[in-house]
Amino acid sequence: MFTTARGWAWLVTVPPPAISQPPPRIQIERPSPLVDGGRYPIKRTVGEVVHISAVIFRDGHEALRAVVRHRAPGARRSHEHPMRHVDAHIDGDTWVASFAVADLGLHEATVEAWIEPFASWRDEVRRKLDAGQPDLASELSEGQVLLRDAVARAKLAAERRRLDAAVEALADEALPQPARAAAAVDPQVLEAVEAASAREEATELDEPLRIDVDRERARFGSWYELFPRSWGGLAGVTEQLPRLAELGFDVVYLPPIHPIGHTNRKGRNNALVAQPGDPGSPWAIGDAGGGHDAVHPELGTLEDVDRLTARAGELGMDVALDFAIQCSADHPWLTEHPEWFHRRPDGTLKYAENPPKKYQDIYNVNWQSEDWRGLWEELRRIVGHWVDHGIRIFRVDNPHTKPLPFWEWLIREIRGQAPDVIFLAEAFTRQAMMHTLAKVGFNQSYTYFTWKNGRHELSEYVDGLAYGGMQEVYRPNFFANTPDILHAYLQHGGAPAFAIRAVLAATLSPSYGIYSGYEHFENLPVRPGSEEYLDSEKYEVKQRGLDGPLLPLLSRLNALRRAHPALQHLSNVTFLDTRNDGLLAFHKRFGDDSLLVVCTLDPQWAQEGACIVPADLGLPPAFQVLDLMDGARYPWHIGHNYVRLDPGRVAHILQVQA
Amino acid sequence: MFTTARGWAWLVTVPPPAISQPPPRIQIERPSPLVDGGRYPIKRTVGEVVHISAVIFRDGHEALRAVVRHRAPGARRSHEHPMRHVDAHIDGDTWVASFAVADLGLHEATVEAWIEPFASWRDEVRRKLDAGQPDLASELSEGQVLLRDAVARAKLAAERRRLDAAVEALADEALPQPARAAAAVDPQVLEAVEAASAREEATELDEPLRIDVDRERARFGSWYELFPRSWGGLAGVTEQLPRLAELGFDVVYLPPIHPIGHTNRKGRNNALVAQPGDPGSPWAIGDAGGGHDAVHPELGTLEDVDRLTARAGELGMDVALDFAIQCSADHPWLTEHPEWFHRRPDGTLKYAENPPKKYQDIYNVNWQSEDWRGLWEELRRIVGHWVDHGIRIFRVDNPHTKPLPFWEWLIREIRGQAPDVIFLAEAFTRQAMMHTLAKVGFNQSYTYFTWKNGRHELSEYVDGLAYGGMQEVYRPNFFANTPDILHAYLQHGGAPAFAIRAVLAATLSPSYGIYSGYEHFENLPVRPGSEEYLDSEKYEVKQRGLDGPLLPLLSRLNALRRAHPALQHLSNVTFLDTRNDGLLAFHKRFGDDSLLVVCTLDPQWAQEGACIVPADLGLPPAFQVLDLMDGARYPWHIGHNYVRLDPGRVAHILQVQA
Repeated sequence: MFTTARGWAWLVTVPPPAISQPPPRIQIERPSPLVDGGRYPIKRTVGEVVHISAVIFRDGHEALRAVVRHRAPGARRSHEHPMRHVDAHIDGDTWVASFAVADLGLHEATVEAWIEPFASWRDEVRRKLDAGQPDLASELSEGQVLLRDAVARAKLAAERRRLDAAVEALADEALPQPARAAAAVDPQVLEAVEAASAREEATELDEPLRIDVDRERARFGSWYELFPRSWGGLAGVTEQLPRLAELGFDVVYLPPIHPIGHTNRKGRNNALVAQPGDPGSPWAIGDAGGGHDAVHPELGTLEDVDRLTARAGELGMDVALDFAIQCSADHPWLTEHPEWFHRRPDGTLKYAENPPKKYQDIYNVNWQSEDWRGLWEELRRIVGHWVDHGIRIFRVDNPHTKPLPFWEWLIREIRGQAPDVIFLAEAFTRQAMMHTLAKVGFNQSYTYFTWKNGRHELSEYVDGLAYGGMQEVYRPNFFANTPDILHAYLQHGGAPAFAIRAVLAATLSPSYGIYSGYEHFENLPVRPGSEEYLDSEKYEVKQRGLDGPLLPLLSRLNALRRAHPALQHLSNVTFLDTRNDGLLAFHKRFGDDSLLVVCTLDPQWAQEGACIVPADLGLPPAFQVLDLMDGARYPWHIGHNYVRLDPGRVAHILQVQA
Repeated sequence: MFTTARGWAWLVTVPPPAISQPPPRIQIERPSPLVDGGRYPIKRTVGEVVHISAVIFRDGHEALRAVVRHRAPGARRSHEHPMRHVDAHIDGDTWVASFAVADLGLHEATVEAWIEPFASWRDEVRRKLDAGQPDLASELSEGQVLLRDAVARAKLAAERRRLDAAVEALADEALPQPARAAAAVDPQVLEAVEAASAREEATELDEPLRIDVDRERARFGSWYELFPRSWGGLAGVTEQLPRLAELGFDVVYLPPIHPIGHTNRKGRNNALVAQPGDPGSPWAIGDAGGGHDAVHPELGTLEDVDRLTARAGELGMDVALDFAIQCSADHPWLTEHPEWFHRRPDGTLKYAENPPKKYQDIYNVNWQSEDWRGLWEELRRIVGHWVDHGIRIFRVDNPHTKPLPFWEWLIREIRGQAPDVIFLAEAFTRQAMMHTLAKVGFNQSYTYFTWKNGRHELSEYVDGLAYGGMQEVYRPNFFANTPDILHAYLQHGGAPAFAIRAVLAATLSPSYGIYSGYEHFENLPVRPGSEEYLDSEKYEVKQRGLDGPLLPLLSRLNALRRAHPALQHLSNVTFLDTRNDGLLAFHKRFGDDSLLVVCTLDPQWAQEGACIVPADLGLPPAFQVLDLMDGARYPWHIGHNYVRLDPGRVAHILQVQA
């Protein structure tokens, strides 16, 4: 007996012999792109193209045909895209098709393949005609049957007429057999038969491929992070929006805006004891005035949030809010829902720690709570609350310390209602967890970019993101700094280091960001060897304004990013040799937009080298480049192109002229 | 709401929130080895080791434990093998375990992972002790609870005593807190807790991995193909068995032994019209005397088959029979089961053809027959019939022109009854089909070895077989020639070409074979450019005996293959540089057996070069090698080792001396 069929996505399973038709003979294997065999959808943004491929074959010599059938979210009908047999492929049985996705949400695509017996008959007869085989009587009778069947199925009169004519020719005993056969071998006859195909032995994937489609911002955007308390609260931030828009930023990202706890409040520079007037860390969420759904009274009100998000919307911008599932000791949940927290046998609550590090101002929830369902639902309510107030991007704090099934559920729930919502995972941890957070639904992810400062580690890291397999789900956001990460490169490299890292972030990754202060070259660590800022804004209020000396460069980069589709994609990068590890060079292309970027990695000394354009990049032997940073033009060519960069001029961003 | 859980093998799915426990937080991803996500079992032979790996992780900092649970076919109980966390692996969350398989048939293995809260507690307390943290009161109370739970679960008195002592120490208020904690941090306490583990949050794969275990012959064997009609029929073959055994052959493979059709019988050299006395092709199966279950009367009787297989069994050999699903025009099925054949509209039966090639003496069955079930069952009956007569290996003719679902069903059916049966696929076609035949159950496969004669194509091809991914299911059998394939290399290279190809086949592949005549250096093609033999034995009777001049070399090779485990495996090969494309060199190792093989590829001229032993092969800086072909000894070392081979001495097979 047959073993029970198992529902694997890539192969039509063997049905039991109880059915009256023999099991399908067509194999559809290795459909792509597929993440973990289809367990998770791949990701695209609106307007992007999905390239589907599969290995399709069958025993024997029957001619095969295949389509990709694509169904948009909520659509009643699906659209078929004929697949093309790619003979040149390493595996001779690969078929491909592409389509663009236009609607937000979860799309489905399946592959269907069938045999076209008339095409098989035609191939055979053509080979016999070529070989000059004289006796084709049996073939002629076969052909008539196949064509008559097609006539019966044909919907258009023109097709019926064409098929009828071919049947008549096949049957015309006045003609020699080869001439009769030749009439049916006409390509237009095949076309008419295929238009009325019976799709014999039609076989499709057991499970469709799934494509989760986001809005463009999930892939492409320039982020500016700021603490509202240093900008005059939410109203102050609202006032800055037009200027931020003018500078080319797409997203303004706010750390938590909720009331801050008082018990064990951290003082300046992470002091264990706060001094009077110290504002505490925004991540120590909640006090008697409210928790995750409240606004810190010193920042404003819910109405201020509404005004901020409305103004951002008018400017085509997004406001991203931090979502940090943790509580200060004063959070209302600790009294209203003590069951959501883990108590030790001695009755004490355990604050967050990662020995020997301690976070005395923060308590984590207990995900194994008996009322875990209540906790999940409250968290969903909170996210929905902010969605209702115009927030469409959530930057999630440390998602890797919360259960993956929770994220998969929450993101699906929220996006089921509001498919334009974007979740950004702030996880710095092992690769498998970072990838799986993206698989379960995070639309964008923090990266290790901050720590990649050498030529080889940068190119290896970006190649991995672009081509390592996870590019179907994992979208990087390259932050040049964050309130937690002031890299030694910035501490010691002076202003040129800030320019270099901004160029790299903005040109290597479709999404990038800076945390305010970057444009002022803030570079003092709390102590040598630390990546924490001295006098960190996490624990105190600053006076901030949009007047940093790096803003012109950032503004220029943001404008170039908007003007050049090549900078809006990830898996279009090719790193080039520079004959000098102090210079990084790469090519990016999207459609007609072809850019060569060369950036120094040395903030202190001039570096000379070459940008070596390989012949297989598809550029002409000689061409003009336009430096988009300063308007200079250079003649370049395949091979070595001399480059010299120094701390005063850290990069060429060159557009290849048609 | 949760989307319905989908049964993918590599990831525990999210259960709906209706259950009372929160969904499992442990992820088990990328279990390996897995073919097409588990759609097909991997293959092993009895005694081989299965290395299982998986990426296992969880949010947060809980200590994880994992086992592989292995169940042999028909076994009531499974065995657990602890998995080891491989920190050094590129993906930090990889866990591994290995076990050997002892029984024929379909084994199952799953991965189970759980958290060990006491181990997490212990890690945390150790870090706090290391940091000198003085207040451990809460930790001490937690530890007591965890240990008391363990005491309640402990089965051995010794373990209970050890745990009780640790609880007492934790509770002993006379001692300072660090000393109390230190007692519980003792590794033996952890061991006792783990022995009584509650396996909290235990999570396992949705579907077990499957391992199809064959007898050793499926992997390793030396084949000799002969046409019984040239050896005095089946009785004559039986007489030759002791000599074949002495020569070191494990399998004697017989083309079809059934009655041969008379209608359109092919004459000598594939002539369209047979002359009186021409015996016809054994692949044109069936006449009035019987079909696939009958023995050609000129070869003997069913009793002769019984005697042949019994004698082979006594000698530790196998008899392999051809299974070719095709009929001569005189096969009983054409009259008894006309419904199994495709008739054209004009009533004619269509003989086999691949235009412009024609096989006028052969008719194929119609797999789309309305009585396809009857056909399948008859074919199963026939294979079972030969199994009952002692045949345990079937060499299947052109399986790629028959439905894959049929093979999957047939092989499962037959091996369900007789798990020692081996099916060898004779398919020369596109890679996807060849691989899928192996996936659906063929235990061994023909290859393109015959056409790989250059150094780079040989090493690339063998590396692909050994490491390309399909080594889990696809076992090659390297035939140096077949009745259908006399490669130009053999036609033009003289006796040395036959020696070279024998050495390569016998040392590169655990299974290899020759077709009789090879040892006589038979090298005449039917016409220039053809790979068909002149006066092919397919169409006439020869006089054959075991007296060819290449037999001493073949006998030596077969003896070395039996003595050296390194030659009995495939995925243990490392090709080495030779500084001369006329020399092929490789290393093979299995356990302590370490061989270096250098073979000339030039049958005409001497070739000088070097065998370059790389440092990372694990050999000492300098070592002795023993040439197993002639007993000579040489001092070799890491780096260049001079080698000269010529047509009189085509290979070194060197054993590295301990």
